[in-house]
Amino acid sequence: MADALRLHPDRFFPPDRAERDAARAVYDETAGLPIVSPHGHVDPALLAEDRPFPEPAELLITPDHYVFRMLHSQGVPLDALGVPRADGSRADVAPREVWRLFCAHWHAFAGTPTRAWMEYELHELFSVEVAPSADTADRIYDQIAERLASPEYRPRVLFERFGIETLATTDAASSALEHHRALDADDWNRPTPPNGAADGSAGARRVIPTFRPDALVQIARAGWSDHVQRLGELAGGAIEDYDSFAAALRRRRADFAALGAVATDHGAETARTGWLPEAERDAVFARALGGAATAEDEAAFTAHMLMAFAEMSADDGLVMQLHVGALRNHDRPLFERFGADKGADIPVATEFTRALRPLLSEFAGGTDRDTAAADGAGRPPFRLIAFTLDESTYARELAPLAGYYPGLVLGPAWWFHDSVEGMLRYRERTTETAGFYNTAGFNDDTRAFCSIPARHDLARRVDAHYLGRLVARHQLGLSEAREVGRALAYDLPRRAYRLDRPAPATAGGAAHARTDGVLA
Amino acid sequence: MADALRLHPDRFFPPDRAERDAARAVYDETAGLPIVSPHGHVDPALLAEDRPFPEPAELLITPDHYVFRMLHSQGVPLDALGVPRADGSRADVAPREVWRLFCAHWHAFAGTPTRAWMEYELHELFSVEVAPSADTADRIYDQIAERLASPEYRPRVLFERFGIETLATTDAASSALEHHRALDADDWNRPTPPNGAADGSAGARRVIPTFRPDALVQIARAGWSDHVQRLGELAGGAIEDYDSFAAALRRRRADFAALGAVATDHGAETARTGWLPEAERDAVFARALGGAATAEDEAAFTAHMLMAFAEMSADDGLVMQLHVGALRNHDRPLFERFGADKGADIPVATEFTRALRPLLSEFAGGTDRDTAAADGAGRPPFRLIAFTLDESTYARELAPLAGYYPGLVLGPAWWFHDSVEGMLRYRERTTETAGFYNTAGFNDDTRAFCSIPARHDLARRVDAHYLGRLVARHQLGLSEAREVGRALAYDLPRRAYRLDRPAPATAGGAAHARTDGVLA
Amino acid sequence: MADALRLHPDRFFPPDRAERDAARAVYDETAGLPIVSPHGHVDPALLAEDRPFPEPAELLITPDHYVFRMLHSQGVPLDALGVPRADGSRADVAPREVWRLFCAHWHAFAGTPTRAWMEYELHELFSVEVAPSADTADRIYDQIAERLASPEYRPRVLFERFGIETLATTDAASSALEHHRALDADDWNRPTPPNGAADGSAGARRVIPTFRPDALVQIARAGWSDHVQRLGELAGGAIEDYDSFAAALRRRRADFAALGAVATDHGAETARTGWLPEAERDAVFARALGGAATAEDEAAFTAHMLMAFAEMSADDGLVMQLHVGALRNHDRPLFERFGADKGADIPVATEFTRALRPLLSEFAGGTDRDTAAADGAGRPPFRLIAFTLDESTYARELAPLAGYYPGLVLGPAWWFHDSVEGMLRYRERTTETAGFYNTAGFNDDTRAFCSIPARHDLARRVDAHYLGRLVARHQLGLSEAREVGRALAYDLPRRAYRLDRPAPATAGGAAHARTDGVLA
Repeated sequence: MADALRLHPDRFFPPDRAERDAARAVYDETAGLPIVSPHGHVDPALLAEDRPFPEPAELLITPDHYVFRMLHSQGVPLDALGVPRADGSRADVAPREVWRLFCAHWHAFAGTPTRAWMEYELHELFSVEVAPSADTADRIYDQIAERLASPEYRPRVLFERFGIETLATTDAASSALEHHRALDADDWNRPTPPNGAADGSAGARRVIPTFRPDALVQIARAGWSDHVQRLGELAGGAIEDYDSFAAALRRRRADFAALGAVATDHGAETARTGWLPEAERDAVFARALGGAATAEDEAAFTAHMLMAFAEMSADDGLVMQLHVGALRNHDRPLFERFGADKGADIPVATEFTRALRPLLSEFAGGTDRDTAAADGAGRPPFRLIAFTLDESTYARELAPLAGYYPGLVLGPAWWFHDSVEGMLRYRERTTETAGFYNTAGFNDDTRAFCSIPARHDLARRVDAHYLGRLVARHQLGLSEAREVGRALAYDLPRRAYRLDRPAPATAGGAAHARTDGVLA
Repeated sequence: MADALRLHPDRFFPPDRAERDAARAVYDETAGLPIVSPHGHVDPALLAEDRPFPEPAELLITPDHYVFRMLHSQGVPLDALGVPRADGSRADVAPREVWRLFCAHWHAFAGTPTRAWMEYELHELFSVEVAPSADTADRIYDQIAERLASPEYRPRVLFERFGIETLATTDAASSALEHHRALDADDWNRPTPPNGAADGSAGARRVIPTFRPDALVQIARAGWSDHVQRLGELAGGAIEDYDSFAAALRRRRADFAALGAVATDHGAETARTGWLPEAERDAVFARALGGAATAEDEAAFTAHMLMAFAEMSADDGLVMQLHVGALRNHDRPLFERFGADKGADIPVATEFTRALRPLLSEFAGGTDRDTAAADGAGRPPFRLIAFTLDESTYARELAPLAGYYPGLVLGPAWWFHDSVEGMLRYRERTTETAGFYNTAGFNDDTRAFCSIPARHDLARRVDAHYLGRLVARHQLGLSEAREVGRALAYDLPRRAYRLDRPAPATAGGAAHARTDGVLA
Repeated sequence: MADALRLHPDRFFPPDRAERDAARAVYDETAGLPIVSPHGHVDPALLAEDRPFPEPAELLITPDHYVFRMLHSQGVPLDALGVPRADGSRADVAPREVWRLFCAHWHAFAGTPTRAWMEYELHELFSVEVAPSADTADRIYDQIAERLASPEYRPRVLFERFGIETLATTDAASSALEHHRALDADDWNRPTPPNGAADGSAGARRVIPTFRPDALVQIARAGWSDHVQRLGELAGGAIEDYDSFAAALRRRRADFAALGAVATDHGAETARTGWLPEAERDAVFARALGGAATAEDEAAFTAHMLMAFAEMSADDGLVMQLHVGALRNHDRPLFERFGADKGADIPVATEFTRALRPLLSEFAGGTDRDTAAADGAGRPPFRLIAFTLDESTYARELAPLAGYYPGLVLGPAWWFHDSVEGMLRYRERTTETAGFYNTAGFNDDTRAFCSIPARHDLARRVDAHYLGRLVARHQLGLSEAREVGRALAYDLPRRAYRLDRPAPATAGGAAHARTDGVLA
């Protein structure tokens, strides 16, 4: 007989009664809040076009590297899963066979967040009531396929069913943003806010882009000049030197902001920052245009551009996000056959204290500077949100930095660490030095649209777990814990990313009184 | 209505009943023990002069970088808090306004040790019964101000009320020690010990200095030659070369010891140790005297001086403390305006295994050496107490080193890690390899005199928490757990720092039998 | 009165009732399973000769660096413990005095795994019922000595009493393997398997060797040429260049495999891997033969040889084990007097992501390669089992690598981390990314034969603890948790090391149904 698939109402809470009761009370406060998703990788075409989803394997397995990397580690070839190859071809496998492979390896996911998210999706979204296995694979496949054919499973219907308030995508700086332009012209993307006031703020849009210029900074890679050329075309002027390059970036940032963008996103292997002297900067850029940039040129130029992007953010108010510490495409032969984003990006030890000093020291101090003129202009202060894959930096570097610099906010537990123990470690290692209010709440960071509510639910439960522990240890009163829970789930991501809509009423019912001071 | 401020009797204990009951039993054993504070930064003038404390903000906010760094991170300028600037000036703000800013940001401290310490101080010391907030700020301010005016709040009265047995301050090697000289002439500083025996040991003093020579080692910094000149004056001889420098340091160590010092303290960015060959050492010192020392000179000379100080400790018996791993004054513009110790010291990754090898290999082996002559002299064995800000070194480097070398003892969780989760991580990562008896008990390390009992209470509660867990998991019997708890709270710091007074009777009442072997 | 020594049936389980009940249920599943010990350091002479054990100190104290390093850290000289010196001499101390020293320092082991193992051995093996102390030392000594004299305490009787199915020793590549040859000729070493089928597989032996060639790779050390000469003699051909060296290694691997070896073991300070170009490789080897290899030569050659050994493993199917990150013989003066393995090996920070990339990328990808020819040959796929002393690499590097590469399996928590908290951290940091099925189960890694059942019992209890937590948090159903527990205790080590005997029936009674897919 097949094992039942159920979602226990106390899942992910601490088993101790005092802790669990407090965790429940905090979760009651946050479970019904809208989803704010200020950082992720959903394809904007999905919501711009609103086409039905394909069958189960194409929806849940093939595009999700969390899923197929685990199957690969257990000896399942990517070709057997129909994962697209670098040359655009694809092994000829039936989706149902892919689904069967996944179900037969369900045991391999025991104890992982993928298991937790998938259980949520199968049960909550598709009403599956048996655990995947070789025996149940076909039954589940058919059930999901049937649902996907119904209009209630169209992307926009799900978007609203999920309770998503804002969803940010991630878009190359040289993207034409055609889907965001389509969304901009679509009434669906600008709903009347709950309080009736059409405030026109960025937060009033449902789907917004995020400016990601990494490919333009990687001056030693093969495709760089193509990206630069495309940037020039989109920004309306040929790029002949560093100055025209920087000017084009500024114009493109304005294009993104006009479509609702509130943030930029930057990925790099290290957190190194620092201005290049002008002459050197120009020489490096010239070498890059000539196709002769070296790896060290790229590293130095990346450090320089992080300073330049910080300066642009200080000017245009886009929040700057920095994700560092992954060595991409570790498995070279597989990269040659299948290309990037195949689960083979592996973290490395990361240094922030020295690396970020130039940037933070110049831009993130925020107060007590000789910057009266700038402040007088009424611009929002500079803000950097930093993410790490090296957990040893939480307590050692990032929490001390965020607990000091007004212009630095900690992004949530990222990627491999977006899990029960991973999120608990994040709170345990950052809260005592940085508090809760120097963190940015949760990011789902996902390409898998259907996993968004599963991921936010897990995060809210784990934050409730942590807060429940503080209450049961008498470190925090329950009413303050509920307050903090609400901030983590809703108020802080909105504040961190400047999505300034008025807060909706609490889903739980009773209005929740807060002093304005808390999240000013 | 304002939230109540209460201290739950089970605060910081594990919520599970079996663990909590055992934790309570351990804490019952330790709660009433005298406070031994062998490492801290209280100004000795406070107790030498015994003047009344000023008003609340000056006592609790302005001098405490734990407090004002968090406010700064939330956008409050240091000038708005009246923090003194580097040039000696100070923004003209009313103390009551400073206090209001602190209370309005009380939420930012949720989950931090500063919150825990402050709750203890407000409630236990000043009988405050409402939580700070914008609404309650004035009421609390007035209540504390009123208490401070009373003779019961004079420093020496509080010292005794806190149950402090020994308090070590930290004093520059080139300090004239005028306050410690005054204390030395003051009967208050040499109380009759509980058992009536005036034993004349270092531990018989209440307030003692600690020898900190860092400024004399930083040969590439601007003020170095001033410190050297002052050292020469105090030690009675001009410093013209390395030999006269070393001789002066030895004389000054003797001066400190004569005033009760039992230890030295050394801070450095890294743990690098190693002798310079004589010729190189002399050349570096000559360059320093000529104002031409480089950064690498300073690093190499620091490594050399740690060896030299270890050799001096092996001779004069002063316990050597080493604190490494903080990058000082990370925020350069703020450092220029406000100077050092403004909450902008940020940890960096630290290496101990290779760095300490020369020092430990030469001085800390302690047994099985060809050192019969030295041992025969009856001198106490060399002892180094090491502190880290990089928790990844606890289980990887420091516990394995301390669980091997007889001359190495682990200092407690330090600075950012002096917190509930931080202290639990410390015990979880060090105990299984080094045991409890290779650790030094607790240090409060504080400048904030009124926080001393709060910090020791928290540490005793967290150690009781950890021990309660071991009991509930059947890893340790309750009577042995109580024994260990008492060692951590009282016996081990006294042993580690050689404060050899006879142990007082247990505050809890019944005498507590121990074999002498345990702490010999 | 002496404290009682008892073993609580719930020891090491979580105290919370829901967690503990689930932990008990998992442990019920695993407690009676046979012991698979695929990596350790027991002397094969012990079982080849089956002589009685000597007295208690020689059995439990003198050869166990876990025990004597802690005593040494508390100031007990190694000579006082009768530890053999490098020159073969030994201080003249009575074994009973050694035992007394150990018992008098019993408190120093509070909270350590050595305490837990020793309690198990004393109580389960020797029926000791009082805790060691100065008072009870003699009584316990006599009791153990009496038992050791009985035939029921001979090594082979204990081997069977412990329920050991397979025990791998670790043997130098240049060992003559005389004890393993004796065992090979001994019926005791090839029992009839439980199901009656004498399958002739490696797993059908009780005691097997492991190929450890480290001494042959350390080309800059004094004794290297002796090892090489010995290798040549054993492999039947003089070693004159790299090619004859590599050929001799291959022949010796075949010798080990013929005696049942299933694995090789490699220790290095770092995880650096990478081929040397042929000319450079030959030049380095020639320099080594000439006695002129440098430290950098050795490091580069070690990196090269790890590639070469991986290639050999891909050919002959021996599982490759890699242990890195210990700085050996930290205390130089003690090393000169007492030699290696005296508790002074100290971990260092370790990097895997970049260091292992050449090896994993070439050998561990396993699928989706242009290796149809090789796969067609029916050889088992390459497998590396990696161990670390740097826990910061669990979640950051090793779990992401093992959760991706089919040819990489994670070894268990190693050495200093083979402890309650250490094993919990291992599961907490690896499971969410790599799952359970990319780990190798438990290794006892011990020289102390009598500690084998203690160590396996502790590991099974801690895995039950972790699984009980997942059940109580509703992350895993109880029946799946029991399944996983069984895999960790028995199936996974057998799979990881290719010990392919049919699984015995569950000791607990009821047969335990599993799909074959899980551990195919």
